[in-house]
This record gives sequence, structure tokens and C-alpha cells, in this order.
Amino acid sequence: MENKLSFAKEIIKEAGDFIKDSLSKTITVEEKTAFDDLVTNIDKQTQDLLVARIQSAFPTDHIFAEENGLVHDIKDGNVWVLDPIDGTVNFIVQQENFCVMIAYYEEGQGKFGLIYNVMADELFYGGGQFDVYCNDKLLPVYQDRPLNRCLVASNAAMFAKNFHGLQSFINKTLGVRVYGGAGLSMSKVLSGQILAYFSVIYPWDYAAASIMGEKLGYQLETINGEALDYSSRQAVMLVPKAKLNDIKTIMSSKD
Amino acid sequence: MENKLSFAKEIIKEAGDFIKDSLSKTITVEEKTAFDDLVTNIDKQTQDLLVARIQSAFPTDHIFAEENGLVHDIKDGNVWVLDPIDGTVNFIVQQENFCVMIAYYEEGQGKFGLIYNVMADELFYGGGQFDVYCNDKLLPVYQDRPLNRCLVASNAAMFAKNFHGLQSFINKTLGVRVYGGAGLSMSKVLSGQILAYFSVIYPWDYAAASIMGEKLGYQLETINGEALDYSSRQAVMLVPKAKLNDIKTIMSSKD
Repeated sequence: MENKLSFAKEIIKEAGDFIKDSLSKTITVEEKTAFDDLVTNIDKQTQDLLVARIQSAFPTDHIFAEENGLVHDIKDGNVWVLDPIDGTVNFIVQQENFCVMIAYYEEGQGKFGLIYNVMADELFYGGGQFDVYCNDKLLPVYQDRPLNRCLVASNAAMFAKNFHGLQSFINKTLGVRVYGGAGLSMSKVLSGQILAYFSVIYPWDYAAASIMGEKLGYQLETINGEALDYSSRQAVMLVPKAKLNDIKTIMSSKD
Repeated sequence: MENKLSFAKEIIKEAGDFIKDSLSKTITVEEKTAFDDLVTNIDKQTQDLLVARIQSAFPTDHIFAEENGLVHDIKDGNVWVLDPIDGTVNFIVQQENFCVMIAYYEEGQGKFGLIYNVMADELFYGGGQFDVYCNDKLLPVYQDRPLNRCLVASNAAMFAKNFHGLQSFINKTLGVRVYGGAGLSMSKVLSGQILAYFSVIYPWDYAAASIMGEKLGYQLETINGEALDYSSRQAVMLVPKAKLNDIKTIMSSKD
């Protein structure tokens, strides 16, 4: 497994370098399901690069990825979960604040995850049998602290609509931050800068953070109590296990 | 004036170094008007440092600052407008994503402004007779682009409540970002990463960005059409002049 994690660290940096190089070139933007659901040629080319490296090194492994319909069942065999650019809108508009994400599963068991904030050159990696690091800094397990000394990151629409009592909960904290990317937001949970993250996202958006978070005392759950299906888009939260009951109680009271 | 701008660049970096050094020490947090309106001993000590430097170099100049009630009328004489730590909650919780801000006025005329993102080591400065830079990079004047290729930064509560049609406007863009600091948010407007910023803030929060923004094709206005009073807390927006009428029209239709 050390070998596979080292390999993943190599290819995620290679993907980051590829994306950085692309910033000086013309980027082609396409709409997917709506005017604000965007993909670029760089998302696709970055995924192709990652897939080619994995298939060359581990020809019998499978891929579950954001682009091009590569959606092998996460619970079946060795599966690499890929998000070539998470925060595509930030990538297009800001040319920073986006991440590459990789998670690796064997028979549905998360073995390790990686989130690479390309422009900040911050690589979060570990989980499973591995400690979790940001670059060369070992990340500590969640230390409990009062809600009124914490910040929360969220999807803006869910906050605005008080989705399942989310705004009621956030109003008991120091406030909400909206960063425009699951990877960026959840990396701030892992580093302790954000208490919890709420959004409606796909498995490639949450797989890596979920595996690393598990190691650091966090839990990924759906907001409405459904089982995580690891295939469709679901409303999820990454929260400290020590705060899970408090948060659920506040959200269900909604006042 | 070159002399005063050079001096301001020196003291803002000195303030940043002081704040960085403080991160390894115990920080004392106090509540001001509410549990989420916080100030620290470092905010106050940083302001004291800036005030001492200014009073020593320019003994007849005046101060308008966030802490300690130093609120000389901006329209009277030579006035330094200071925000020692903008984004105090981020400073406390995240130990990054906060700024030091300085603006300089003569008889109510903005002469230059500075925003220093301490942990990112990004210094925005200029306005008035000076071009606007981020570190050694000259910032270009606003280039018009369609709303559906832009992001907007906002106070989260104003977005959630559709304050004066703000959410209606943001829904025509690629979305909202909430960064938790006026300085941080408006520096992203100046660099072109964010189209416009909306919040309820004090003069020390908007003075520097307003002076630099003016030079780059932006305008600071109140959201409700009142005159900017340069003394109280007001609901304001920093928007490109080229988009001002479009934005007002969309906000007033509120659908």
C-alpha cells in the first residue's frame, strides 16, 4: 500500500503541474447540466493523464471518475476515485482555489485519499493505515472546541434556504464560509480551520476527504439520514464525530 | 506623496510581521457587541504600533481607526484610516485570511490605499496619483465580461436574505463566495478574481479598496442609495462602473 500511496502522490503532483502549465494557454469552457455547471478541456485532459498513469502501472485496477463516464462500482475490486479539477468555476474565473483529488478503495474499503490544492502547493494525503499529512506537517486528530469559536463551510444555497436546519446550526458558530470547492473546503476541515462542511456532492468530491477525515476523528454522513450510496449526488456533511450529536440536535430543532 | 506611500508600505509590512510573530503566543479574545464580534490584544497592539509610527513621522496628521475610539473626521486635514486586523475571526480561528489596511486622505480626498494579506504576503497598494499593484505586479483596469462568467463575494446574511435583491443578482452569476473579510474580498475584486463585493461595513473596512478601486474602474456605493458618510457602518458595494447600471437594474427587479 505504501507503494500505491507514493505512486498517487507522484501522479497528483504531475496532474497539478499539467494544470499550472495550462493556465498560460487557451482554456475551452463547456456547460454540462446548467450555465454554472462547467467543465473545461483541462479537466478532461488532466483526468486522461491520471487514468493513463494508473492503467499503465496497475492494469487490473478500475476507475471511478468525474468526467467521461468512467464509473466503476466503488465496492468492486481495486478502484481509483478521481476528480481531476474540483472547483472548476474557481479554476476558470480565479485561476486558483481548485484541487485535484484521488481516493483509493479495495472492495469498498477506503485505503487512502489525497487532495492537492494546486496553486497553494498544499498536498493533503493519508488515511487508512497512514497518518494524515499536509505536505510534511502531520495533522493532529480533531480537538474539541466550543461552537462559538468555530467556522463552518457550506454550499451557499443550502445555507440560504436553511436546508435541514443548517443555517440554524451555523448561526450558533462564528459564521459560514463559501469557498466554491468541496476539496478546498474539506481540506480546511482536515487542517482544523473549519469545523464542518455541508454540500450536495458526488463520491469523487468527498471520497478522499472522507478517508482522511475518518483517521482524524471526522465522519462523512448524509444530511437527511439516508445511507451514503457512493454513486449518486447526495447532500452530505463532514463533521467531527465528537460534535455529531450536538449538530444533529441543533439542526433538527431548526430555530 | 511618494514619500508617504513608501512610509505606508513600510509600516504595513512591519505590522504584518508583528502579527505573524504573535501567532506563536497566547492571543486574548474579547467580545465587542456580540459573541461573533471579536477583538484580540493583537488587533489593539498592531493598531498602537501603526499609530505610534504615524505620529512619530507625521505629528500633525490625524487618525481614524477601528480600535480605541480614534475617529478623527476623514474630511478634516491629513487623515490615516487604519484597520489593524480585518477579518479578526479568520485570524483567531484560521490564523490566515486576514489583512492589515491603511488609507490616506487629505481634506476628504483619498490619496492612496493599502491592503496587506499577511499570511499570503500579498500587498495591494496605490490609487490616487499612483498605479495599483499587487506586490510587483501592475493590476490592469477592469475589463468587462459577462455576468455568467463572474463570481461575487458577499456577506452571507445579506445573500441569504436577498437584501435589496442581492441574491437575485448573484443568481445571474457563477455564484457567491464568502471569505469572512472585507479586505480579503475586495483585494480579489481588485485582482479581477471577483466581480463585486457586498457587505455592511465601516470606513476602515472600505477606504483602502475604494481608493484603489477608483483607479481600476470600480466604484464604492451604498446599496440603498444613501450617501456614503465615511463615519458609520453602511451597506455598501464595490462594483465595476461599467456594470453599475446592470447590477442596480437586476437588484431592483428582485426576481
